[in-house]
Amino acid sequence: MVIPAGSPSPERKRHVMRGTIIHAPGDIRFEERPDPTVKEPTDAVIRTVATCVCGSDLWRYRGIQEVPKPTPIGHEYVGVVEAVGADVTTIRPGQFVVGGFLTSDNTCPLCKVGAHSNCQNGTGYDGCQAEFIRVQNADGTLLATPEDPGDAMVPHLLALSDVMCTGWHAAVCADVQPGSTVVVVGDGAVGLSGVLAAAQLGAERVIAMSRHADRQAIARAFGATDIIAERGDDGIEQVMEATNGIGADAVLECVGTEDSVLQALRSTRAGGMVGWVGVPHVTDLPQQHMFWKNVVLRGGPAPVRAYLPKLLERVWDGRIEPGKVFDLTLPLDQVAEGYAAMDERRAIKTLLRP
Amino acid sequence: MVIPAGSPSPERKRHVMRGTIIHAPGDIRFEERPDPTVKEPTDAVIRTVATCVCGSDLWRYRGIQEVPKPTPIGHEYVGVVEAVGADVTTIRPGQFVVGGFLTSDNTCPLCKVGAHSNCQNGTGYDGCQAEFIRVQNADGTLLATPEDPGDAMVPHLLALSDVMCTGWHAAVCADVQPGSTVVVVGDGAVGLSGVLAAAQLGAERVIAMSRHADRQAIARAFGATDIIAERGDDGIEQVMEATNGIGADAVLECVGTEDSVLQALRSTRAGGMVGWVGVPHVTDLPQQHMFWKNVVLRGGPAPVRAYLPKLLERVWDGRIEPGKVFDLTLPLDQVAEGYAAMDERRAIKTLLRP
Repeated sequence: MVIPAGSPSPERKRHVMRGTIIHAPGDIRFEERPDPTVKEPTDAVIRTVATCVCGSDLWRYRGIQEVPKPTPIGHEYVGVVEAVGADVTTIRPGQFVVGGFLTSDNTCPLCKVGAHSNCQNGTGYDGCQAEFIRVQNADGTLLATPEDPGDAMVPHLLALSDVMCTGWHAAVCADVQPGSTVVVVGDGAVGLSGVLAAAQLGAERVIAMSRHADRQAIARAFGATDIIAERGDDGIEQVMEATNGIGADAVLECVGTEDSVLQALRSTRAGGMVGWVGVPHVTDLPQQHMFWKNVVLRGGPAPVRAYLPKLLERVWDGRIEPGKVFDLTLPLDQVAEGYAAMDERRAIKTLLRP
Repeated sequence: MVIPAGSPSPERKRHVMRGTIIHAPGDIRFEERPDPTVKEPTDAVIRTVATCVCGSDLWRYRGIQEVPKPTPIGHEYVGVVEAVGADVTTIRPGQFVVGGFLTSDNTCPLCKVGAHSNCQNGTGYDGCQAEFIRVQNADGTLLATPEDPGDAMVPHLLALSDVMCTGWHAAVCADVQPGSTVVVVGDGAVGLSGVLAAAQLGAERVIAMSRHADRQAIARAFGATDIIAERGDDGIEQVMEATNGIGADAVLECVGTEDSVLQALRSTRAGGMVGWVGVPHVTDLPQQHMFWKNVVLRGGPAPVRAYLPKLLERVWDGRIEPGKVFDLTLPLDQVAEGYAAMDERRAIKTLLRP
């Protein structure tokens, strides 16, 4: 497929687009919706070139998080700018752009210190698994590529919208340094991205916890030096054997369950840090593995815009190929199957093309 | 008083010394105890020159932590080396030494990465509020002063045994940098030491939360630029007013209660860190102020030996006078009164002299 990125879509005459709505757990529908428009002078509207399903979308799909009413869903995208508001200065129609899973103005006091995911004027989206997307705070959210990317680069750029920046955030929060020994808990798309981030940041050893051959292969390709298939006590024992008996300097927690948080804390050496990016579903944090061991959980939603410029460079010059986490590509109108495949672990991460 | 530090105590003929035992909450006694001896070749025995009462000792004194049986107490000291085991190479009898509140071998894999408070061979003490103290892991725990300190320097050196290093750890864990805005929650000896640490590390603003005039005065002397007397919502409001509406880059939690942890987390800007050194008595950590705000609690028991060489230099050349936190000095045999004074907030911290 050649992406017609050079100009606004010529055939755009409709005033109804199609987008994804989650109606209830397990009930994903692709439906007609109003065309997004520029409502604020800082908005942009983009035509989606690719979008995808996030592990965090599955919380609602699986009924672990409530779905009180039918809700547009999706927060990852790349696309071509269709229209911009009067105050938008850094992007223009026709450009290929990447944006993060939350918008940010890139100018407020929190953005200025790099906390873009907590931007004082930040917003979410009205569903990005859609043909068109309204992006608020366009200047502070979107980054244009230097020129039209080839088709092969699209998945790698799309990965920057969330999963790669989230893996990067995990590694930064865990203070991965050149020479570090790192354990990554979780072999989903974020965990695999965390492996890539740790390797890029110079970790000497990157131990991926994974028991799936396909995911292990991607982990190796991303720079994992060791694979540990065991979990629980057996997994901890393997980590200890691999780390001089003390645990890893840095551990990336990329799942968010009670078990994975515990696994991460127990795998960390005293004085080390856990990068904490799995959306937490933990009743009580296990303090007994924290204070007295000087081990910390550090993280939260990734400040995508803070990382985007440097990571876009790495994708552009071919140093990283984070889009390898997409192992299923479907037409956007088959989004329901995209969810089902991830839910049933038939896919690591589903890429959707309008 | 002139400290006879140059030689072992000449009159040491007894085989019974006196030390402090906590028998039950509120019941502190100064009693005869067996003279400590060198049991392992890595031990030292020191004659106490000064010791003190720690805020954490008060947890048992107040019955918040159990006292299942009469227990020797105290973990802060400076003194003169009386005897060393055959394997001790870095200190010798007659030297004036400082040691941390836990012993460390300074050679195990955890000490090598600076996590001395979690040393694989670390130990506590058999009560340091005593005339003589057995120090295990002497080489990895004790640091000798370049020469005999004058009497006036003793409190400042004693402060390095715990409280100053703990305040320093809070500031390091909160990632205080030149130019940082810092809030310190807690105006006890650790909080005041945290103020001093933050100022020494180059913080531009150091906001001390304190409603006691005497403690405010020490905070100012230690480098506080602002004092906020309010607590709870009013305190948070003051912090927000002082920090461009976003909260502080770094917050030092130096108390350990539910209220203080909450105060600290709520005072921190998104993406900032709380240095966590108040021994925690918190049922559940308030996650709602952590993950989504990218705010972390980072800390634990301070790795004293990691900080001791540099901090000893700062005391020795007069750059810091952390002993100002001692506002009551008593003979060691009045230790019970030392506890009572701190419990009743008549004293910030009690120094005890044998």
